[in-house]
Amino acid sequence: MSNVRVLPVLEPEMEPCCPPLDERPLTAEEAERTAVMFKALGDPVRLRLFSSVASHEGGEACVCDISDVGVSQPTVSHHLRKLKEAGLLSSERRGTWVYYRVEPTVLAAMGALLAKAASA
Amino acid sequence: MSNVRVLPVLEPEMEPCCPPLDERPLTAEEAERTAVMFKALGDPVRLRLFSSVASHEGGEACVCDISDVGVSQPTVSHHLRKLKEAGLLSSERRGTWVYYRVEPTVLAAMGALLAKAASA
Repeated sequence: MSNVRVLPVLEPEMEPCCPPLDERPLTAEEAERTAVMFKALGDPVRLRLFSSVASHEGGEACVCDISDVGVSQPTVSHHLRKLKEAGLLSSERRGTWVYYRVEPTVLAAMGALLAKAASA
Repeated sequence: MSNVRVLPVLEPEMEPCCPPLDERPLTAEEAERTAVMFKALGDPVRLRLFSSVASHEGGEACVCDISDVGVSQPTVSHHLRKLKEAGLLSSERRGTWVYYRVEPTVLAAMGALLAKAASA
């Protein structure tokens, strides 16, 4: 019998919220929600960690998989939690480790926001 | 004879630089360059101003066009300059005013970074 329990993937608190950036000025509330996501990717170390998770085999990674960004494991954990709080990663504990995975719907929404604005 | 000189649109210093975020971990240098752009959109006021410019008639706006974000004109100018420094807007002086315009290639590249990662 396995003692590994598979916990449900946590839903991100942040939903894709907003129209393409070139459709109309964002409201204050929309801007608050969306800026959180951009800000999370606005740090070089966090962005490298995000791409490490996104490019890892199976699209998920734990702190134990990431050793080449040149920051300590507690710092890696801290940044991964920040990315999760921003709704960009979801997480699942399996045994000792928490595995992080890219949250595709939120990312696709951010991409669409920008790509639509780019074709204006 | 007109005394209005049309100056060339300034090229942004920032070029689209990087592979999709799910292809491989970004290098430190790639992350530094890309994080600057995300960070610029990671402030709610800046994001609203950006969407104001992007959604304005003709895809460009000057400080004189933006009055509904609830910050002073010097603050608007400050944030538009920051967006330009990050390579997201280009600018052109026409007479008294500097007009800002969305930089489509950079935005499209940012959108592609995210959209590709989302389909991983």
